[in-house]
Amino acid sequence: MEQDPKQRLAIVLIDTRNPLNIGAAARAMSNFGFFDLRLVRPYEVAFQEAASAVGAASLLRGARVFSSVAEAVADCSLVVGATGLGHRVLEHPLHRLERAARLLRRHLQSARAAILFGSEKFGLSNDDISHCHWLLHIPARPEHDSMNLGQAVAVTLYELHRSPAAARRLPEARELATAAELERLTLLLEDVLALSGYSDFTRETSASAKTHRLLRRLSLRSRDAAILTGMLRQILWKLRHPGQ
Amino acid sequence: MEQDPKQRLAIVLIDTRNPLNIGAAARAMSNFGFFDLRLVRPYEVAFQEAASAVGAASLLRGARVFSSVAEAVADCSLVVGATGLGHRVLEHPLHRLERAARLLRRHLQSARAAILFGSEKFGLSNDDISHCHWLLHIPARPEHDSMNLGQAVAVTLYELHRSPAAARRLPEARELATAAELERLTLLLEDVLALSGYSDFTRETSASAKTHRLLRRLSLRSRDAAILTGMLRQILWKLRHPGQ
Repeated sequence: MEQDPKQRLAIVLIDTRNPLNIGAAARAMSNFGFFDLRLVRPYEVAFQEAASAVGAASLLRGARVFSSVAEAVADCSLVVGATGLGHRVLEHPLHRLERAARLLRRHLQSARAAILFGSEKFGLSNDDISHCHWLLHIPARPEHDSMNLGQAVAVTLYELHRSPAAARRLPEARELATAAELERLTLLLEDVLALSGYSDFTRETSASAKTHRLLRRLSLRSRDAAILTGMLRQILWKLRHPGQ
Repeated sequence: MEQDPKQRLAIVLIDTRNPLNIGAAARAMSNFGFFDLRLVRPYEVAFQEAASAVGAASLLRGARVFSSVAEAVADCSLVVGATGLGHRVLEHPLHRLERAARLLRRHLQSARAAILFGSEKFGLSNDDISHCHWLLHIPARPEHDSMNLGQAVAVTLYELHRSPAAARRLPEARELATAAELERLTLLLEDVLALSGYSDFTRETSASAKTHRLLRRLSLRSRDAAILTGMLRQILWKLRHPGQ
Protein backbone atom coordinates (compact mmCIF):
# COMPACT_ATOMS: atom_id res chain seq x y z
CA MET A 1 0.00 0.00 0.00
CA GLU A 2 1.10 3.56 -0.72
CA GLN A 3 3.08 5.41 1.92
CA ASP A 4 1.23 8.69 1.40
CA PRO A 5 -2.29 8.57 2.91
CA LYS A 6 -3.56 10.88 0.15
CA GLN A 7 -2.76 8.22 -2.42
CA ARG A 8 -5.26 5.91 -0.70
CA LEU A 9 -8.19 8.12 -1.72
CA ALA A 10 -10.06 7.51 -4.98
CA ILE A 11 -12.28 10.16 -6.56
CA VAL A 12 -15.15 8.43 -8.35
CA LEU A 13 -17.22 10.36 -10.92
CA ILE A 14 -20.46 8.61 -11.85
CA ASP A 15 -22.42 9.13 -15.11
CA THR A 16 -20.56 12.36 -15.86
CA ARG A 17 -21.92 14.00 -18.99
CA ASN A 18 -19.50 16.83 -19.71
CA PRO A 19 -15.83 15.95 -20.36
CA LEU A 20 -14.93 19.51 -19.27
CA ASN A 21 -16.10 18.60 -15.78
CA ILE A 22 -13.93 15.49 -15.76
CA GLY A 23 -10.98 17.66 -16.77
CA ALA A 24 -11.81 20.22 -14.09
CA ALA A 25 -12.00 17.48 -11.45
CA ALA A 26 -8.62 16.15 -12.60
CA ARG A 27 -7.07 19.60 -12.36
CA ALA A 28 -8.36 20.12 -8.82
CA MET A 29 -7.04 16.66 -7.85
CA SER A 30 -3.61 17.59 -9.13
CA ASN A 31 -3.76 20.99 -7.34
CA PHE A 32 -4.42 19.32 -4.00
CA GLY A 33 -2.27 16.20 -4.45
CA PHE A 34 -4.76 13.40 -5.17
CA PHE A 35 -4.15 11.20 -8.21
CA ASP A 36 -6.53 8.22 -8.28
CA LEU A 37 -9.41 9.15 -10.60
CA ARG A 38 -12.09 6.56 -11.41
CA LEU A 39 -14.99 7.01 -13.82
CA VAL A 40 -18.22 5.03 -13.85
CA ARG A 41 -20.05 5.07 -17.22
CA PRO A 42 -18.76 8.45 -18.49
CA TYR A 43 -20.94 9.70 -21.36
CA GLU A 44 -17.98 10.74 -23.46
CA VAL A 45 -15.18 8.24 -23.90
CA ALA A 46 -12.88 10.94 -25.30
CA PHE A 47 -12.70 12.54 -21.84
CA GLN A 48 -8.92 12.15 -21.74
CA GLU A 49 -8.52 15.13 -24.04
CA ALA A 50 -10.47 17.49 -21.78
CA ALA A 51 -8.80 20.86 -22.22
CA SER A 52 -9.91 21.91 -18.75
CA ALA A 53 -7.37 19.56 -17.17
CA VAL A 54 -4.54 22.12 -17.37
CA GLY A 55 -1.47 20.55 -15.79
CA ALA A 56 -3.24 17.25 -15.14
CA ALA A 57 -3.12 15.47 -18.51
CA SER A 58 -1.21 12.46 -17.19
CA LEU A 59 -3.60 12.08 -14.27
CA LEU A 60 -6.45 12.05 -16.75
CA ARG A 61 -4.75 9.48 -18.96
CA GLY A 62 -4.30 7.27 -15.92
CA ALA A 63 -8.00 7.43 -15.00
CA ARG A 64 -9.73 4.05 -14.91
CA VAL A 65 -13.20 3.42 -16.33
CA PHE A 66 -15.69 1.06 -14.68
CA SER A 67 -19.15 -0.07 -15.67
CA SER A 68 -20.53 -0.12 -12.14
CA VAL A 69 -20.04 1.61 -8.80
CA ALA A 70 -19.49 -1.77 -7.12
CA GLU A 71 -16.45 -2.48 -9.31
CA ALA A 72 -15.11 1.06 -8.95
CA VAL A 73 -15.00 0.92 -5.14
CA ALA A 74 -14.21 -2.78 -4.70
CA ASP A 75 -10.81 -2.14 -3.03
CA CYS A 76 -12.03 0.62 -0.65
CA SER A 77 -13.05 0.05 2.97
CA LEU A 78 -14.80 3.40 3.29
CA VAL A 79 -17.12 4.84 0.62
CA VAL A 80 -18.48 8.36 1.03
CA GLY A 81 -21.11 10.05 -1.15
CA ALA A 82 -20.97 13.80 -1.87
CA THR A 83 -24.47 15.26 -1.91
CA GLY A 84 -26.54 18.38 -1.37
CA LEU A 85 -28.91 18.59 1.57
CA GLY A 86 -31.87 18.25 -0.78
CA HIS A 87 -30.92 14.71 -1.75
CA ARG A 88 -30.49 13.51 1.77
CA VAL A 89 -31.31 9.87 2.22
CA LEU A 90 -32.43 9.76 5.79
CA GLU A 91 -31.04 6.40 6.69
CA HIS A 92 -27.51 7.55 5.96
CA PRO A 93 -25.42 9.59 8.36
CA LEU A 94 -24.66 12.98 6.83
CA HIS A 95 -21.57 14.97 7.82
CA ARG A 96 -20.63 18.52 7.00
CA LEU A 97 -17.45 18.70 4.93
CA GLU A 98 -15.16 19.80 7.77
CA ARG A 99 -16.10 16.80 9.91
CA ALA A 100 -16.17 14.49 6.89
CA ALA A 101 -12.61 15.52 6.06
CA ARG A 102 -11.44 14.69 9.58
CA LEU A 103 -13.05 11.24 9.41
CA LEU A 104 -11.60 10.59 5.95
CA ARG A 105 -8.09 11.68 6.95
CA ARG A 106 -8.19 9.33 9.91
CA HIS A 107 -9.33 6.42 7.75
CA LEU A 108 -6.70 7.11 5.09
CA GLN A 109 -3.95 6.70 7.67
CA SER A 110 -4.30 2.96 7.27
CA ALA A 111 -6.85 2.07 4.59
CA ARG A 112 -8.38 3.03 1.26
CA ALA A 113 -11.41 5.25 0.78
CA ALA A 114 -13.48 6.62 -2.10
CA ILE A 115 -15.62 9.73 -2.52
CA LEU A 116 -18.46 9.43 -5.04
CA PHE A 117 -19.74 12.38 -7.09
CA GLY A 118 -22.95 11.95 -9.09
CA SER A 119 -23.95 13.29 -12.50
CA GLU A 120 -24.24 17.03 -13.17
CA LYS A 121 -27.99 16.87 -13.52
CA PHE A 122 -29.17 14.33 -10.97
CA GLY A 123 -26.38 13.92 -8.42
CA LEU A 124 -26.05 10.52 -6.76
CA SER A 125 -28.84 8.04 -7.35
CA ASN A 126 -30.32 5.94 -4.56
CA ASP A 127 -28.45 2.99 -6.03
CA ASP A 128 -25.15 4.92 -5.91
CA ILE A 129 -25.86 5.91 -2.30
CA SER A 130 -26.51 2.30 -1.36
CA HIS A 131 -22.76 1.74 -1.78
CA CYS A 132 -21.89 4.48 0.72
CA HIS A 133 -21.06 4.20 4.40
CA TRP A 134 -22.08 7.82 4.93
CA LEU A 135 -22.60 11.07 3.06
CA LEU A 136 -20.84 14.43 3.07
CA HIS A 137 -22.26 17.79 2.14
CA ILE A 138 -20.59 21.09 1.44
CA PRO A 139 -22.15 23.85 3.56
CA ALA A 140 -23.76 26.23 1.06
CA ARG A 141 -26.73 28.57 0.86
CA PRO A 142 -29.84 26.39 1.39
CA GLU A 143 -31.67 28.23 -1.43
CA HIS A 144 -28.98 27.23 -3.95
CA ASP A 145 -26.80 24.38 -2.75
CA SER A 146 -26.42 22.62 -6.09
CA MET A 147 -22.78 23.05 -6.99
CA ASN A 148 -20.94 22.69 -10.27
CA LEU A 149 -19.24 19.27 -10.32
CA GLY A 150 -15.69 20.54 -10.82
CA GLN A 151 -16.14 23.13 -8.10
CA ALA A 152 -17.59 20.60 -5.66
CA VAL A 153 -14.56 18.33 -6.21
CA ALA A 154 -12.21 21.32 -5.73
CA VAL A 155 -13.83 22.46 -2.48
CA THR A 156 -13.92 18.90 -1.09
CA LEU A 157 -10.26 18.23 -1.87
CA TYR A 158 -9.23 21.67 -0.57
CA GLU A 159 -10.79 20.79 2.78
CA LEU A 160 -9.05 17.39 2.79
CA HIS A 161 -5.72 18.93 1.81
CA ARG A 162 -5.60 21.89 4.12
CA SER A 163 -4.31 20.70 7.43
CA PRO A 164 -5.43 23.00 10.20
CA ALA A 165 -2.06 22.42 11.81
CA ALA A 166 -0.30 23.83 8.77
CA ALA A 167 -2.52 26.90 8.67
CA ARG A 168 -0.01 28.93 10.54
CA ARG A 169 0.78 32.37 9.31
CA LEU A 170 3.47 32.39 6.66
CA PRO A 171 6.80 33.64 7.88
CA GLU A 172 6.93 37.26 6.95
CA ALA A 173 9.93 39.48 7.10
CA ARG A 174 7.77 42.21 8.50
CA GLU A 175 10.45 44.09 10.30
CA LEU A 176 9.05 47.27 11.80
CA ALA A 177 11.00 50.53 11.67
CA THR A 178 12.97 51.35 14.81
CA ALA A 179 12.26 54.45 16.89
CA ALA A 180 15.46 56.01 15.57
CA GLU A 181 14.40 55.46 11.95
CA LEU A 182 10.99 56.98 12.69
CA GLU A 183 12.56 59.95 14.43
CA ARG A 184 14.79 60.69 11.43
CA LEU A 185 11.79 60.45 9.15
CA THR A 186 9.71 62.73 11.39
CA LEU A 187 12.36 65.47 11.51
CA LEU A 188 12.76 65.30 7.76
CA LEU A 189 9.00 65.58 7.22
CA GLU A 190 8.91 68.62 9.52
CA ASP A 191 11.69 70.30 7.54
CA VAL A 192 9.81 69.72 4.29
CA LEU A 193 6.54 70.99 5.74
CA ALA A 194 8.17 74.07 7.23
CA LEU A 195 9.81 74.96 3.92
CA SER A 196 6.52 74.40 2.10
CA GLY A 197 4.62 76.68 4.46
CA TYR A 198 2.21 73.91 5.52
CA SER A 199 -0.09 75.99 7.71
CA ASP A 200 -1.02 73.47 10.35
CA PHE A 201 2.63 72.98 11.05
CA THR A 202 3.89 76.54 11.22
CA ARG A 203 1.02 78.08 13.14
CA GLU A 204 0.36 75.47 15.78
CA THR A 205 2.77 74.64 18.56
CA SER A 206 1.39 71.08 18.68
CA ALA A 207 2.35 70.46 15.05
CA SER A 208 5.43 68.42 15.94
CA ALA A 209 3.40 66.13 18.18
CA LYS A 210 0.96 65.69 15.28
CA THR A 211 3.59 64.57 12.78
CA HIS A 212 5.07 62.27 15.40
CA ARG A 213 1.71 60.62 16.03
CA LEU A 214 0.87 60.41 12.34
CA LEU A 215 4.05 58.55 11.42
CA ARG A 216 3.76 56.20 14.37
CA ARG A 217 0.15 55.32 13.58
CA LEU A 218 1.30 53.94 10.23
CA SER A 219 3.25 51.01 11.75
CA LEU A 220 5.87 51.47 9.06
CA ARG A 221 8.19 48.69 8.06
CA SER A 222 11.86 49.49 8.14
CA ARG A 223 12.10 49.17 4.39
CA ASP A 224 9.17 51.51 3.75
CA ALA A 225 10.58 54.06 6.19
CA ALA A 226 13.76 54.04 4.09
CA ILE A 227 11.79 54.58 0.87
CA LEU A 228 9.85 57.50 2.41
CA THR A 229 13.06 58.99 3.81
CA GLY A 230 14.59 58.91 0.33
CA MET A 231 11.54 60.62 -1.16
CA LEU A 232 11.52 63.36 1.48
CA ARG A 233 15.27 64.00 1.08
CA GLN A 234 14.76 64.58 -2.61
CA ILE A 235 11.75 66.86 -2.03
CA LEU A 236 13.71 68.83 0.58
CA TRP A 237 16.62 69.27 -1.81
CA LYS A 238 14.31 70.53 -4.55
CA LEU A 239 12.60 72.98 -2.20
CA ARG A 240 16.01 74.39 -1.28
CA HIS A 241 17.24 74.53 -4.88
CA PRO A 242 14.16 75.55 -6.88
CA GLY A 243 16.14 76.62 -9.94
CA GLN A 244 18.01 73.32 -10.48
CA MET B 1 -24.74 50.26 3.77
CA GLU B 2 -26.04 46.68 3.56
CA GLN B 3 -26.99 44.86 6.76
CA ASP B 4 -25.44 41.55 5.73
CA PRO B 5 -21.63 41.64 5.89
CA LYS B 6 -21.42 39.23 2.94
CA GLN B 7 -23.08 41.83 0.72
CA ARG B 8 -20.12 44.14 1.35
CA LEU B 9 -17.75 41.84 -0.56
CA ALA B 10 -17.18 42.36 -4.28
CA ILE B 11 -15.67 39.63 -6.45
CA VAL B 12 -13.64 41.29 -9.21
CA LEU B 13 -12.62 39.24 -12.27
CA ILE B 14 -9.94 40.93 -14.37
CA ASP B 15 -9.30 40.28 -18.08
CA THR B 16 -11.30 37.05 -17.99
CA ARG B 17 -11.15 35.30 -21.36
CA ASN B 18 -13.66 32.48 -21.05
CA PRO B 19 -17.32 33.35 -20.35
CA LEU B 20 -17.75 29.84 -18.92
CA ASN B 21 -15.41 30.85 -16.12
CA ILE B 22 -17.43 33.98 -15.40
CA GLY B 23 -20.53 31.81 -15.22
CA ALA B 24 -18.78 29.33 -12.95
CA ALA B 25 -17.66 32.13 -10.64
CA ALA B 26 -21.24 33.46 -10.53
CA ARG B 27 -22.59 30.03 -9.66
CA ALA B 28 -20.11 29.61 -6.80
CA MET B 29 -20.99 33.11 -5.54
CA SER B 30 -24.66 32.16 -5.47
CA ASN B 31 -23.90 28.84 -3.74
CA PHE B 32 -22.08 30.60 -0.92
CA GLY B 33 -24.24 33.73 -0.68
CA PHE B 34 -22.18 36.48 -2.34
CA PHE B 35 -23.84 38.59 -5.04
CA ASP B 36 -21.66 41.55 -6.04
CA LEU B 37 -19.80 40.53 -9.21
CA ARG B 38 -17.61 43.07 -11.01
CA LEU B 39 -15.76 42.51 -14.28
CA VAL B 40 -12.77 44.48 -15.53
CA ARG B 41 -12.30 44.29 -19.30
CA PRO B 42 -13.95 40.88 -19.94
CA TYR B 43 -12.95 39.51 -23.36
CA GLU B 44 -16.44 38.39 -24.22
CA VAL B 45 -19.26 40.88 -23.75
CA ALA B 46 -21.85 38.13 -24.09
CA PHE B 47 -20.79 36.71 -20.73
CA GLN B 48 -24.31 37.13 -19.34
CA GLU B 49 -25.45 34.06 -21.24
CA ALA B 50 -22.82 31.77 -19.75
CA ALA B 51 -24.52 28.40 -19.42
CA SER B 52 -22.25 27.46 -16.56
CA ALA B 53 -24.05 29.89 -14.25
CA VAL B 54 -26.75 27.36 -13.35
CA GLY B 55 -29.04 29.01 -10.82
CA ALA B 56 -27.17 32.32 -10.96
CA ALA B 57 -28.50 34.00 -14.10
CA SER B 58 -29.84 37.07 -12.29
CA LEU B 59 -26.56 37.50 -10.43
CA LEU B 60 -24.76 37.42 -13.78
CA ARG B 61 -27.14 39.94 -15.33
CA GLY B 62 -26.48 42.28 -12.40
CA ALA B 63 -22.69 42.10 -12.86
CA ARG B 64 -21.06 45.47 -13.50
CA VAL B 65 -18.33 46.01 -16.10
CA PHE B 66 -15.43 48.43 -15.54
CA SER B 67 -12.58 49.53 -17.74
CA SER B 68 -10.01 49.70 -14.95
CA VAL B 69 -9.26 48.07 -11.61
CA ALA B 70 -9.18 51.51 -9.95
CA GLU B 71 -12.81 52.17 -10.92
CA ALA B 72 -13.93 48.66 -9.98
CA VAL B 73 -12.63 48.93 -6.39
CA ALA B 74 -13.20 52.66 -5.81
CA ASP B 75 -15.75 52.14 -2.99
CA CYS B 76 -13.75 49.42 -1.15
CA SER B 77 -11.46 50.09 1.81
CA LEU B 78 -9.77 46.69 1.61
CA VAL B 79 -8.55 45.19 -1.67
CA VAL B 80 -7.14 41.64 -1.65
CA GLY B 81 -5.47 39.85 -4.56
CA ALA B 82 -5.83 36.09 -5.06
CA THR B 83 -2.54 34.63 -6.29
CA GLY B 84 -0.38 31.53 -6.41
CA LEU B 85 2.87 31.42 -4.48
CA GLY B 86 4.79 31.71 -7.73
CA HIS B 87 3.55 35.22 -8.42
CA ARG B 88 4.38 36.49 -4.99
CA VAL B 89 5.33 40.15 -4.96
CA LEU B 90 7.66 40.26 -2.02
CA GLU B 91 6.67 43.64 -0.68
CA HIS B 92 3.06 42.56 -0.17
CA PRO B 93 1.95 40.60 2.87
CA LEU B 94 0.71 37.17 1.77
CA HIS B 95 -1.83 35.23 3.82
CA ARG B 96 -3.00 31.65 3.48
CA LEU B 97 -6.69 31.41 2.69
CA GLU B 98 -7.79 30.45 6.22
CA ARG B 99 -6.18 33.50 7.77
CA ALA B 100 -7.18 35.71 4.85
CA ALA B 101 -10.82 34.68 5.37
CA ARG B 102 -10.64 35.63 9.04
CA LEU B 103 -9.23 39.06 8.19
CA LEU B 104 -11.81 39.61 5.46
CA ARG B 105 -14.73 38.58 7.65
CA ARG B 106 -13.63 40.99 10.32
CA HIS B 107 -13.32 43.84 7.84
CA LEU B 108 -16.72 43.08 6.29
CA GLN B 109 -18.39 43.57 9.66
CA SER B 110 -18.24 47.31 9.06
CA ALA B 111 -16.76 48.12 5.63
CA ARG B 112 -16.51 47.08 2.01
CA ALA B 113 -13.84 44.81 0.53
CA ALA B 114 -12.96 43.32 -2.85
CA ILE B 115 -11.10 40.17 -3.89
CA LEU B 116 -9.34 40.38 -7.28
CA PHE B 117 -8.89 37.34 -9.53
CA GLY B 118 -6.62 37.67 -12.57
CA SER B 119 -6.91 36.21 -16.05
CA GLU B 120 -6.89 32.45 -16.64
CA LYS B 121 -3.51 32.54 -18.34
CA PHE B 122 -1.51 35.15 -16.48
CA GLY B 123 -3.21 35.70 -13.12
CA LEU B 124 -2.89 39.14 -11.56
CA SER B 125 -0.47 41.57 -13.20
CA ASN B 126 1.91 43.74 -11.19
CA ASP B 127 -0.36 46.65 -11.99
CA ASP B 128 -3.41 44.78 -10.63
CA ILE B 129 -1.45 43.89 -7.49
CA SER B 130 -0.47 47.52 -6.97
CA HIS B 131 -4.13 48.15 -6.04
CA CYS B 132 -4.06 45.50 -3.31
CA HIS B 133 -3.51 45.90 0.42
CA TRP B 134 -2.40 42.28 0.69
CA LEU B 135 -2.55 38.95 -1.12
CA LEU B 136 -4.18 35.62 -0.38
CA HIS B 137 -3.19 32.20 -1.64
CA ILE B 138 -5.00 28.89 -1.60
CA PRO B 139 -2.75 26.22 -0.10
CA ALA B 140 -2.16 23.73 -2.91
CA ARG B 141 0.54 21.36 -4.11
CA PRO B 142 3.62 23.52 -4.79
CA GLU B 143 4.33 21.60 -8.02
CA HIS B 144 0.91 22.53 -9.44
CA ASP B 145 -0.70 25.43 -7.62
CA SER B 146 -2.26 27.09 -10.67
CA MET B 147 -5.97 26.62 -10.18
CA ASN B 148 -8.88 26.90 -12.58
CA LEU B 149 -10.49 30.32 -12.13
CA GLY B 150 -13.99 29.06 -11.28
CA GLN B 151 -12.56 26.55 -8.82
CA ALA B 152 -10.35 29.16 -7.15
CA VAL B 153 -13.39 31.42 -6.66
CA ALA B 154 -15.40 28.48 -5.27
CA VAL B 155 -12.71 27.43 -2.78
CA THR B 156 -12.15 31.03 -1.61
CA LEU B 157 -15.86 31.70 -1.05
CA TYR B 158 -16.32 28.31 0.63
CA GLU B 159 -13.67 29.28 3.17
CA LEU B 160 -15.30 32.70 3.70
CA HIS B 161 -18.74 31.14 4.08
CA ARG B 162 -18.04 28.11 6.19
CA SER B 163 -16.90 29.34 9.58
CA PRO B 164 -19.88 29.55 11.90
CA ALA B 165 -17.93 31.58 14.42
CA ALA B 166 -18.77 35.19 13.69
CA ALA B 167 -15.71 37.34 13.71
CA ARG B 168 -15.77 40.23 16.10
CA ARG B 169 -16.34 43.68 14.71
CA LEU B 170 -13.18 45.64 14.06
CA PRO B 171 -14.05 49.24 14.93
CA GLU B 172 -11.37 50.77 12.75
CA ALA B 173 -12.35 49.00 9.55
CA ARG B 174 -14.98 51.59 8.74
CA GLU B 175 -12.38 54.31 9.05
CA LEU B 176 -9.87 52.88 6.59
CA ALA B 177 -9.23 54.95 3.49
CA THR B 178 -11.20 53.89 0.42
CA ALA B 179 -9.46 52.93 -2.80
CA ALA B 180 -10.57 56.25 -4.33
CA GLU B 181 -8.95 58.22 -1.48
CA LEU B 182 -5.76 56.20 -1.85
CA GLU B 183 -5.75 56.72 -5.59
CA ARG B 184 -5.98 60.50 -5.16
CA LEU B 185 -3.15 60.41 -2.65
CA THR B 186 -1.03 58.26 -4.96
CA LEU B 187 -1.44 60.58 -7.94
CA LEU B 188 -0.57 63.59 -5.77
CA LEU B 189 2.55 61.87 -4.43
CA GLU B 190 3.62 61.07 -7.98
CA ASP B 191 3.19 64.73 -9.00
CA VAL B 192 5.33 65.84 -6.06
CA LEU B 193 8.00 63.24 -6.76
CA ALA B 194 8.11 64.08 -10.47
CA LEU B 195 8.51 67.81 -9.76
CA SER B 196 11.22 67.06 -7.19
CA GLY B 197 13.18 64.96 -9.65
CA TYR B 198 13.04 61.87 -7.38
CA SER B 199 15.32 59.64 -9.40
CA ASP B 200 13.72 56.23 -8.81
CA PHE B 201 10.48 57.66 -10.05
CA THR B 202 11.53 59.32 -13.27
CA ARG B 203 13.90 56.66 -14.54
CA GLU B 204 11.92 53.50 -13.86
CA THR B 205 8.72 52.59 -15.64
CA SER B 206 7.66 50.58 -12.59
CA ALA B 207 7.75 53.65 -10.38
CA SER B 208 3.99 54.13 -10.43
CA ALA B 209 3.39 50.56 -9.36
CA LYS B 210 5.90 51.13 -6.55
CA THR B 211 4.14 54.19 -5.17
CA HIS B 212 0.80 52.38 -5.43
CA ARG B 213 2.14 49.43 -3.46
CA LEU B 214 3.85 51.63 -0.91
CA LEU B 215 0.71 53.58 -0.01
CA ARG B 216 -1.48 50.49 0.15
CA ARG B 217 0.94 48.65 2.42
CA LEU B 218 0.41 51.38 5.01
CA SER B 219 -3.28 50.48 5.62
CA LEU B 220 -4.02 54.18 6.01
CA ARG B 221 -7.06 55.39 7.86
CA SER B 222 -9.29 57.80 6.03
CA ARG B 223 -8.34 60.63 8.39
CA ASP B 224 -4.61 60.11 7.94
CA ALA B 225 -5.02 59.91 4.17
CA ALA B 226 -6.67 63.33 4.37
CA ILE B 227 -3.80 64.75 6.46
CA LEU B 228 -1.20 63.39 4.05
CA THR B 229 -3.18 64.70 1.08
CA GLY B 230 -3.19 68.17 2.66
CA MET B 231 0.57 68.02 3.26
CA LEU B 232 1.29 66.91 -0.29
CA ARG B 233 -0.96 69.63 -1.76
CA GLN B 234 0.98 72.26 0.13
CA ILE B 235 4.34 70.79 -0.92
CA LEU B 236 3.17 70.65 -4.52
CA TRP B 237 2.06 74.28 -4.39
CA LYS B 238 5.45 75.35 -3.01
CA LEU B 239 7.35 73.35 -5.64
CA ARG B 240 5.33 75.14 -8.32
CA HIS B 241 5.72 78.58 -6.75
CA PRO B 242 9.24 78.58 -5.34
CA GLY B 243 9.44 82.38 -5.00
CA GLN B 244 6.31 82.87 -2.89
